[in-house]
Amino acid sequence: MVLRDKVVTLAHGGGGKAMRDLIAEVFTAVFQPPGSEDQARLMDEALREPGARLAFTTDSFVVTPLEFPGGDIGKIAVCGTVNDLVVGGARPLWLSAAFIIEEGCPVDTLRRVVASMAEEAAKAGVRIVTGDTKVVERGKGDGVFVTTSGIGVIPPGREIGAVQVRPGDVVLVNGVLGDHGATILAARGDLALSSDIQSDCAGLGHLMEAALAAAPGIRAARDCTRGGLASTLNEIAGEAGVAIELDETALPLRDEVRGVCEILGLDPLYLANEGRLALFCPADQAEAALAAMRALPEGMGAVAVGRVLAAPAGRVTMRTPFGGSRIVDMLVGEQLPRIC
Amino acid sequence: MVLRDKVVTLAHGGGGKAMRDLIAEVFTAVFQPPGSEDQARLMDEALREPGARLAFTTDSFVVTPLEFPGGDIGKIAVCGTVNDLVVGGARPLWLSAAFIIEEGCPVDTLRRVVASMAEEAAKAGVRIVTGDTKVVERGKGDGVFVTTSGIGVIPPGREIGAVQVRPGDVVLVNGVLGDHGATILAARGDLALSSDIQSDCAGLGHLMEAALAAAPGIRAARDCTRGGLASTLNEIAGEAGVAIELDETALPLRDEVRGVCEILGLDPLYLANEGRLALFCPADQAEAALAAMRALPEGMGAVAVGRVLAAPAGRVTMRTPFGGSRIVDMLVGEQLPRIC
Repeated sequence: MVLRDKVVTLAHGGGGKAMRDLIAEVFTAVFQPPGSEDQARLMDEALREPGARLAFTTDSFVVTPLEFPGGDIGKIAVCGTVNDLVVGGARPLWLSAAFIIEEGCPVDTLRRVVASMAEEAAKAGVRIVTGDTKVVERGKGDGVFVTTSGIGVIPPGREIGAVQVRPGDVVLVNGVLGDHGATILAARGDLALSSDIQSDCAGLGHLMEAALAAAPGIRAARDCTRGGLASTLNEIAGEAGVAIELDETALPLRDEVRGVCEILGLDPLYLANEGRLALFCPADQAEAALAAMRALPEGMGAVAVGRVLAAPAGRVTMRTPFGGSRIVDMLVGEQLPRIC
Repeated sequence: MVLRDKVVTLAHGGGGKAMRDLIAEVFTAVFQPPGSEDQARLMDEALREPGARLAFTTDSFVVTPLEFPGGDIGKIAVCGTVNDLVVGGARPLWLSAAFIIEEGCPVDTLRRVVASMAEEAAKAGVRIVTGDTKVVERGKGDGVFVTTSGIGVIPPGREIGAVQVRPGDVVLVNGVLGDHGATILAARGDLALSSDIQSDCAGLGHLMEAALAAAPGIRAARDCTRGGLASTLNEIAGEAGVAIELDETALPLRDEVRGVCEILGLDPLYLANEGRLALFCPADQAEAALAAMRALPEGMGAVAVGRVLAAPAGRVTMRTPFGGSRIVDMLVGEQLPRIC
């Protein structure tokens, strides 16, 4: 069977033959979901273990442009949902993928997005087991939006979350910050920026498992996506009722990203990342966690960037190189729309 | 906390304070997901039973208009995903909900959609446990799109699916066909139709459990959404390798729906439903299944509409009142876009 259409039309969303052909050739031929029902039927022995819990998460992806240096909307959709599972200590098992396609979207674009999803899923060890496609009229969508949901299993006894964070903990990140945000800015072209920066978009399951093996006391982790490291730390500080102090000299920033931010008046602490997490670790296990992360490509640039203090609750501050201190607030308003 | 914004702006998707406030007040205050992490952590004892399986499904909803007689996009999003679980014999447990909101969407519209999701979830006995919001620029979306994913548990030993269908089985439906499709057509207004038809949108979990209790031999079920009963039966006939013969005189159709179809040259067999399923049942249990369905409001109009024949595989036909027979093909192209 060869789909003759070059672009998606409204007929591909109507529930009839055109839709069946599009789904069969572009989606299920690549993802190979189990069975022919609208629901996947699944089991994993890890779920039956006493004390094991199921982790469930979802994200819609609306990034523009759809393809950019270092990734595309499909790669982000898989990595983003995988990362939402792994930062809670879950081992990701299964993903769903739902596509809202704008009339006129080239079928070849969909094929590339789907191929990149399949590749990232394989890397992360997850299967895309169920999905959906809808088509909207031209001007009612934007190419394609992808929504992925993920199921993972949290092994018995693993308690990772913001509420576990304690004063004295060290804050680690796994590499330079802001590459994804700066890449999207540059890729949009309307800022006349040219740079060699690539998105950091990556699945972090292997990194998280390696860190946990080396530092079983890890308290919490969170991926620093929209709103950047600053917003992530503010969330955690609020939920844990602690203060967090960053060390400005320790922040890992690429010169190109610093440059983009200076030109545009942006703060790299608020730039989105798609392959970076903040990890909260007891001080005596921080070196072990860093060493384990640095042994993997996605953690090569791992460093400690700050520490947790008892008070004031919910406050994030940054020590400057000159001995001063400033408040690092949550992002107000928006820095950059449709970054993921 | 009172959200002062009347409409959604791009800032509500930026990952900062505006987004946090929108999510807290409009979404999580109503859905009350467990915990503060990006992933829900869940367990249900039914999942641990030997032989139990997990069912996982997803659907994006892009219906226009967002609100229509008998429902709205939120009600459809919950019922649609619940129904995808229950037609496979699963008991629905948890849903995720991801929103792609167009800049300018009134916050009050979102509140109504969310309230209607919460109401349907309560009726169906499922919890909305995790979610996401994204905002796209004006003209890159259409009000709001909702993607729901669902997890359910299939009890040990329950094998329901198209491949179980056998020659001699009876095909049942739970009520009049095409109300949803006709309602959406009329609600769009541009056809100058006025009618009192309401969408049939409904969760079918209780109906399916009642039917299974009365007729444990039920082979397969599928909800007749996009493409209508005709497309659903073609899918099942193809997957099961059987023929299906409908009896035209038995088809339950409302006079108003017949009327709309005659005026517009549509075939009601292809009109979408959001609260109707086709059930395949051994002939000797069909009366019991019908009686059980008729005892519930969503099954009051349950009738037998056809039967399964051995051959030709994949073929659906209809016996006309005059003793003739015609082929009922899968929908070709689209009858009506954005029906769900």
